[in-house]
Amino acid sequence: MSLLEPDRLFPVEPSLRAMARALYDSVSGLPIISPHGHCDPRWFAENQRFPNPAELFVIPDHYVFRMLVSQGVNMADLGVPRVDGGPVETDPRAIWRLFAAHQHLFRATPSAMWLAHAFSEVFGMTEPLSAENADMYYDRIDEMLGQDEFRPRALFDRFGVEVLATTEGALDDLGWHRQIADSGWQGRVITTYRPDAVIDPDFEGFGANLDQLGALTDEDTSTWQGYLAAHRKRRAFFREHGATATDHGHPSALTADLPPGEAEALYHKVRTGQGDAADAELFRAQMLTEMARMSVEDGMVMQIHPGARRNHNAGVFEQFGRDKGFDIPGRTDYVAALKPMLDAVGLEPGLTIILFTLDETSYGRELAPLAGAYPALRLGPPWWFFDSYEGIRRFRETVTETAGFYNTAGFNDDTRAFCSIPARHDVARRSDCAYLATLVGTGRLGESEAFEVAHDLTYRLAKDAYRL
Amino acid sequence: MSLLEPDRLFPVEPSLRAMARALYDSVSGLPIISPHGHCDPRWFAENQRFPNPAELFVIPDHYVFRMLVSQGVNMADLGVPRVDGGPVETDPRAIWRLFAAHQHLFRATPSAMWLAHAFSEVFGMTEPLSAENADMYYDRIDEMLGQDEFRPRALFDRFGVEVLATTEGALDDLGWHRQIADSGWQGRVITTYRPDAVIDPDFEGFGANLDQLGALTDEDTSTWQGYLAAHRKRRAFFREHGATATDHGHPSALTADLPPGEAEALYHKVRTGQGDAADAELFRAQMLTEMARMSVEDGMVMQIHPGARRNHNAGVFEQFGRDKGFDIPGRTDYVAALKPMLDAVGLEPGLTIILFTLDETSYGRELAPLAGAYPALRLGPPWWFFDSYEGIRRFRETVTETAGFYNTAGFNDDTRAFCSIPARHDVARRSDCAYLATLVGTGRLGESEAFEVAHDLTYRLAKDAYRL
Amino acid sequence: MSLLEPDRLFPVEPSLRAMARALYDSVSGLPIISPHGHCDPRWFAENQRFPNPAELFVIPDHYVFRMLVSQGVNMADLGVPRVDGGPVETDPRAIWRLFAAHQHLFRATPSAMWLAHAFSEVFGMTEPLSAENADMYYDRIDEMLGQDEFRPRALFDRFGVEVLATTEGALDDLGWHRQIADSGWQGRVITTYRPDAVIDPDFEGFGANLDQLGALTDEDTSTWQGYLAAHRKRRAFFREHGATATDHGHPSALTADLPPGEAEALYHKVRTGQGDAADAELFRAQMLTEMARMSVEDGMVMQIHPGARRNHNAGVFEQFGRDKGFDIPGRTDYVAALKPMLDAVGLEPGLTIILFTLDETSYGRELAPLAGAYPALRLGPPWWFFDSYEGIRRFRETVTETAGFYNTAGFNDDTRAFCSIPARHDVARRSDCAYLATLVGTGRLGESEAFEVAHDLTYRLAKDAYRL
Repeated sequence: MSLLEPDRLFPVEPSLRAMARALYDSVSGLPIISPHGHCDPRWFAENQRFPNPAELFVIPDHYVFRMLVSQGVNMADLGVPRVDGGPVETDPRAIWRLFAAHQHLFRATPSAMWLAHAFSEVFGMTEPLSAENADMYYDRIDEMLGQDEFRPRALFDRFGVEVLATTEGALDDLGWHRQIADSGWQGRVITTYRPDAVIDPDFEGFGANLDQLGALTDEDTSTWQGYLAAHRKRRAFFREHGATATDHGHPSALTADLPPGEAEALYHKVRTGQGDAADAELFRAQMLTEMARMSVEDGMVMQIHPGARRNHNAGVFEQFGRDKGFDIPGRTDYVAALKPMLDAVGLEPGLTIILFTLDETSYGRELAPLAGAYPALRLGPPWWFFDSYEGIRRFRETVTETAGFYNTAGFNDDTRAFCSIPARHDVARRSDCAYLATLVGTGRLGESEAFEVAHDLTYRLAKDAYRL
Repeated sequence: MSLLEPDRLFPVEPSLRAMARALYDSVSGLPIISPHGHCDPRWFAENQRFPNPAELFVIPDHYVFRMLVSQGVNMADLGVPRVDGGPVETDPRAIWRLFAAHQHLFRATPSAMWLAHAFSEVFGMTEPLSAENADMYYDRIDEMLGQDEFRPRALFDRFGVEVLATTEGALDDLGWHRQIADSGWQGRVITTYRPDAVIDPDFEGFGANLDQLGALTDEDTSTWQGYLAAHRKRRAFFREHGATATDHGHPSALTADLPPGEAEALYHKVRTGQGDAADAELFRAQMLTEMARMSVEDGMVMQIHPGARRNHNAGVFEQFGRDKGFDIPGRTDYVAALKPMLDAVGLEPGLTIILFTLDETSYGRELAPLAGAYPALRLGPPWWFFDSYEGIRRFRETVTETAGFYNTAGFNDDTRAFCSIPARHDVARRSDCAYLATLVGTGRLGESEAFEVAHDLTYRLAKDAYRL
Repeated sequence: MSLLEPDRLFPVEPSLRAMARALYDSVSGLPIISPHGHCDPRWFAENQRFPNPAELFVIPDHYVFRMLVSQGVNMADLGVPRVDGGPVETDPRAIWRLFAAHQHLFRATPSAMWLAHAFSEVFGMTEPLSAENADMYYDRIDEMLGQDEFRPRALFDRFGVEVLATTEGALDDLGWHRQIADSGWQGRVITTYRPDAVIDPDFEGFGANLDQLGALTDEDTSTWQGYLAAHRKRRAFFREHGATATDHGHPSALTADLPPGEAEALYHKVRTGQGDAADAELFRAQMLTEMARMSVEDGMVMQIHPGARRNHNAGVFEQFGRDKGFDIPGRTDYVAALKPMLDAVGLEPGLTIILFTLDETSYGRELAPLAGAYPALRLGPPWWFFDSYEGIRRFRETVTETAGFYNTAGFNDDTRAFCSIPARHDVARRSDCAYLATLVGTGRLGESEAFEVAHDLTYRLAKDAYRL
């Protein structure tokens, strides 16, 4: 029994399926451009073996463990580390068995397809994971992880990755990236400038972070000008380690463009902890515009990822901390929110701002009309919960008629699950080819155009948008 | 001419249609689990004949009469009772003719399919209802309603209903349910605890309702603790009459978890009519958390049905009162609204809260992420305007990728139109099988898994979620 | 190579395609009813040749030029007139070449299909426009535009237009319409009353507009009663020039029904420039109800087009002014917003109000439930960004199950791009027939019913709704 249908995600009607398959065949072998994600650069710096199947597939993947938790499995029994010092399961085989026994929960989810892809294509498994074969799975994968061809760099090459961007905080020393560069290995692993911890006054340790930012850059971050200068220096430092982009994960998409004196006063207020929630929101808003201005100067592509309401459950946050599957999207406005920034820099010829959303209602109503007008804007691919067949379908069907293809930015996998990278890109390629085949079959796109667009969506648009 | 296509609602592509049909054939004969609805328990207690076709199909069904009203038919001419004492049509045949003459308005609506199903499967009609055959229809149905096999209990058995939940207010004496139990009839008709009238300060007669609640339970509802104790007693009383669930129809999904002293003070304010609209909203919010806490104690499943803006038109409300088709959904937030309750009880192992929505934008953005993380949460089926082929399709396509199947709660018909029950369950089974067939055909679900899921969606999930 | 697939927009599955084609064949030859649009009546009054291809296809069409601008083309290089006196390209051939070189941007957009339709069906082109054949295209189209059969009236007849409504401001002298009437030409070109400039206090020159309104009507617009009387006179004047409808393009759908004294006081406040933004919003809201009341009196159909956030970019507005593709939709509430007006007149038997939206989330949640209950309400077709295959599909799939077909108002093209009129109506007819074929194929609609509905959607509903 095969884990993967060869024609998966293609339309079922035979003529459409043939067209989708032909389009897919023309792009399935293209290199992977992964311009946004959360892999650990240490993997590629040290090139050590992955410790075991549970640490590769279960413990770090909030897509996976939250689903078991939603059905009553205790998060601690899945080995998810606790921040409160309480006990967690430490036997990776026990964790794996628990995971294996709950595979039915993933039916028809992207996780099921990503896992099947990795099990099948990376580890050569031929039967679906279940409670019965959990140990066989564990032993075989664990054995393979000990082989050289399953070390991070070997898999990077085998996956056909042309470039992989990781994401580091503004205070990171980028030591792993330096180590990669110094190693002589040819894999292109670049960083991304993610300054939330020194921009968001609600971030834990914001004041201390600003001090550290000053120390790292030899700038006086007790002043507004010193603070901005420190950002410029860190951006340059990140560019030296390959970064072509910045990334901003804010609760909302609000931007502001205050007069310089007001911005300065606001900075002093939030820096000294005297600001309230509205001040924090306004400061984040102001900083998006400041970051956009710096992008005009230095050419870094700006990514805005708004809309997640983080750490929704108090108990989970206390016991397990951040990023534990309890981040829930909320309604996100873009039209009024982005206007101050777009009035300031939206027509700048050299600027690229890539917008993401967790609120699909904004696709047709706000994001496509904005991207279909402003030269500075591109739309990022469906993100997080929407990185899926249906998510991609809704994105294309809702966005394309207003913004076309060329105001979008290709695919990115946004993942910390390394083995899911080829799976996710494969799903995106298949989903896009399914959409294109339907366009051809209904007379909305010429066949030769479809092949060109398939190539663009798979490869060229991401490289162009991220200047790779 | 048949009123129903045998392959209705299945995909048209032949291989998908065959798969959908096979899946449907495996579940079409399963008993009906109807865990939420508004049938009158008196029907089954007394087992009298239904009076006439107009009272069975037109007068009580706001889906039906609002559509005629929307095209200029006077509500009074359809026999809808008035609360202002004005005249209404009393001749059921005249009402039936008016209904028959407007059948084109229902084209491609669920009502059309439900009506055709009942006319065809229950009453054996073979041609569509029209102005021309209105009298023939009326006479035949009326004649059949006089036969024993068309009395409520006989139809209950014929429909294959395993369990049917009705909904009663907290002050109801449940006399009809007691009469059913005493009758020796084996049909399982259970009640549901719906305490809106003693929880919502905006409900007509709220203060008097509280007094009555106290009298019924021998508790002092002038105190907060007495009020809560009275709820506990009524919940126990409802459980004695079969109830496994409570139901809460609030304007919003807001919850709160006030310190005990504040909750007590708020209760006194709203009980004595001194609260404003914000106090009423906050009290409803607090009571959702209190009800959830009681569910942790007593094991009753909690249903939350938010989002309807009731009685939209002042004139209709004055003349005809509540529930007359002029209830319009509005935007409904869940993420911030549910946080207080979920912080309090969202991780409780024994708790089940079933969420419904009239705002489809919340499916992917809020409800699926919440249900895909919290063990206490399940998603109810598409509700009211979305209890339809397209409604079910959008629900599955938007929810499944994030929450899977096993965080949903099966189907429920939510109807007061008794003859539509088998029709509605049939539409749900067909729509789900159509979706599952598409998953199989596109390689997203294995065939044997699909058969298992079809059974779960039709039968097991509703029984499990409602603890039936 | 043909520019248009004969079966475009039909389902691909053969039996559905055959059904869609049969339905389409039954309506493709019906006359065009165009009850809402922005063609220039001068074209038909003077019947002069269109100046050149760039002025016909590029310069006035914000759908077209905004797409090039979104990819970095300078708006001035496309000949879009500036309000700030800056230079713009004046050579129509240069503009045309720039447009031709960017055709790939329109892939899979409605503009691509409309342009291909016009190029092919109106001008007989047989190969797609490209940088290579730009001059050939220009020369051939320009030559044809000089022929009598390409003058406005000849095209009007060739397009099979039975009636075309233009839109004029309340202060317009309707001279072109008078000239058309006086000319003896049989084409039916009627006007529509669009009073935004004398209703919206935020409109440029509002105070002066009120003075002019008074002068035109010989009413004292310094008084509330005089102002209302002036509207009545202008409405009558517009009806003399064929108008059957009014149109209201407000930022939101807010309505109000103030006591007369408050309305009067509010009028004085906004008239004298003393109102703030909230007063302006409230005045627009009050005037929707006043306009609805006048519609009850005079029988004019009322159209409400809310939700566009106009002139999103400050720089574009300063350089180029209004309507330059930088109008972005925003969230739009209908349920609370329309209640005051609907409480006042929603049950009036003679009234028709046609609602449009740029917020698709309102289709199923708000608009279909409202239109499926209120006799005064009809839903306009998908508008602007949603006048497209996918937009129409989403509209039908989301609206029909709740509101049916007969609470919708047929299609309208809403365009100032004359040659796109037959293309847009063709897309709507094909999209509707595709939807109807799917209903038939899945047993949701009888075949003979589908033919009747196809005719209604194409022809009868628009004529009825607009009283043409």
